[in-house]
Amino acid sequence: MSEHTLASWNDGPTRQSILDFVAAADDLPVEQRVAVFDNDGTLWCEKPSYTQLLFMLGELHRAVAADATVGERSEYRALLDDDKAKQAELGLPAIAMALVELCAGITAAEFERRVLAFFESARHPTLDVPLKQLRYQPMLELVDLLREHDFSVFIVTGGGTEFVRAISNDFYGVAPERVVGSMIGYEVQRDDQDRPHPIRTKTMFGEVDEGDAKVSNLQMGLGRRPIFAAGNTPGDASMMEYARTSDGPTLALLVDHDDADREFAYEGKAASFDSAGSFVDAGRDLGWTIASMRDDWSQIFPAS
Amino acid sequence: MSEHTLASWNDGPTRQSILDFVAAADDLPVEQRVAVFDNDGTLWCEKPSYTQLLFMLGELHRAVAADATVGERSEYRALLDDDKAKQAELGLPAIAMALVELCAGITAAEFERRVLAFFESARHPTLDVPLKQLRYQPMLELVDLLREHDFSVFIVTGGGTEFVRAISNDFYGVAPERVVGSMIGYEVQRDDQDRPHPIRTKTMFGEVDEGDAKVSNLQMGLGRRPIFAAGNTPGDASMMEYARTSDGPTLALLVDHDDADREFAYEGKAASFDSAGSFVDAGRDLGWTIASMRDDWSQIFPAS
Repeated sequence: MSEHTLASWNDGPTRQSILDFVAAADDLPVEQRVAVFDNDGTLWCEKPSYTQLLFMLGELHRAVAADATVGERSEYRALLDDDKAKQAELGLPAIAMALVELCAGITAAEFERRVLAFFESARHPTLDVPLKQLRYQPMLELVDLLREHDFSVFIVTGGGTEFVRAISNDFYGVAPERVVGSMIGYEVQRDDQDRPHPIRTKTMFGEVDEGDAKVSNLQMGLGRRPIFAAGNTPGDASMMEYARTSDGPTLALLVDHDDADREFAYEGKAASFDSAGSFVDAGRDLGWTIASMRDDWSQIFPAS
Repeated sequence: MSEHTLASWNDGPTRQSILDFVAAADDLPVEQRVAVFDNDGTLWCEKPSYTQLLFMLGELHRAVAADATVGERSEYRALLDDDKAKQAELGLPAIAMALVELCAGITAAEFERRVLAFFESARHPTLDVPLKQLRYQPMLELVDLLREHDFSVFIVTGGGTEFVRAISNDFYGVAPERVVGSMIGYEVQRDDQDRPHPIRTKTMFGEVDEGDAKVSNLQMGLGRRPIFAAGNTPGDASMMEYARTSDGPTLALLVDHDDADREFAYEGKAASFDSAGSFVDAGRDLGWTIASMRDDWSQIFPAS
């Protein structure tokens, strides 16, 4: 282990439990060393709103600039007017699927080009830094450590699979086929030379990648069973518990957003746990390792 | 290039077109060097019947031994009686989905265990060799050559994704997440400790991975556009044409089963090509490279 191992993690039981886990995993066959990470709020900042929502708002403004009537649709109107009451009434799923339609009919390659163009210039709305600066430095170090111990590292995100794939290699060193998320269906259309292209549709292929769907989607998409899983909301709980079904060493790591000064303080609701208490408490009771951003991380974001 | 490069390929235009292609690809960014292979009939022998069908017949015999009434179902009866007329009447899709039900309700891990147990003892029905001996030696050398040139290698199979994943690393050095095929849906069930497990269902998730579905499935499963594709039937044609949509060097390689003495002589039907002629002729007209097993391969199977 290099002297820079988990350099942004403070000494203490959390850091130690990670070190103990990777040391124990050294005894496993390499193909069993499988680590999965949620993305939003686990590998990068998800507040005040999902990065993907910022991208889609950009697509919406572009569409409205080209044709003002587009903005008449109620889901779009609620966003353009920043009408929180209307947004709540319509619900995030309906709004998200309306936004998905903005990219229906384009090729996978064109969608990737648009996402990369967005990341080229976009900045975080309150922290005012490029979005790549919103990755969590301690989590990047954890990914590095796992790779040093011959883990294969995957991303299992509630966000759009193709959105994350566009930057997964650059941001995390994770190849596109190692990203599983909420997937838009494709249809094949032929060009004027009769050659086939995959075209984005406006419908989901399978379920939104949250909760139990994270378990089935990671099996279908990756064919691996993780022994390490990191997440930050109840939507990650099934995946984290699934990682703990192996007989050998396992680790479920919960990122606790308890640092209002350096990031954002919030906690996911624990409804899926039948618990009146907090999600962090529920995870601790299950035997998960809690990474407190306030106490365990000496640094949140990478040096610019 | 080592002196063993494509050692089982005879000198000639086919071997040379492969060498020219990989040399040209050296100028591309590594992330664009993406190669996809069909499996049945392209990487291993698919005659006289698909390997997966042999596995499923074993599952059927096991189920009938445990409960004879299982064999009363018409799809199973037609197989157990080797009743070709009845099989043709029912159709392969219906028979395949009936067989899929034999593995419904088990975990992904248990399915993998059964597949590996099958490969441990199964032998080819006419060639009488272990199934690993049915890989095509020239194609293994081609995979090696592509990797030497920093290609990422994927399998896009009409067969069951999980069936191929169970042996893809051992047989081809291809990790499970790099295999896309016909996918069975999963549901999540909880064990007595309330921990989630992915359980096989009896229904398909998405389409059978043939024809245009190979293009959309490889996009959804892998997020890559290939510049090299190899196949052997019209079900591979869309994927092969898709690989040729890049502006840079591309290669579509068709394995022509024209060697009745050393393997099996047969040709896929070309219905999807609106061609009265042969599929091989249609591919040649499109500009594909044809690998004749008889003329281009000095050796078919690996030395045992």
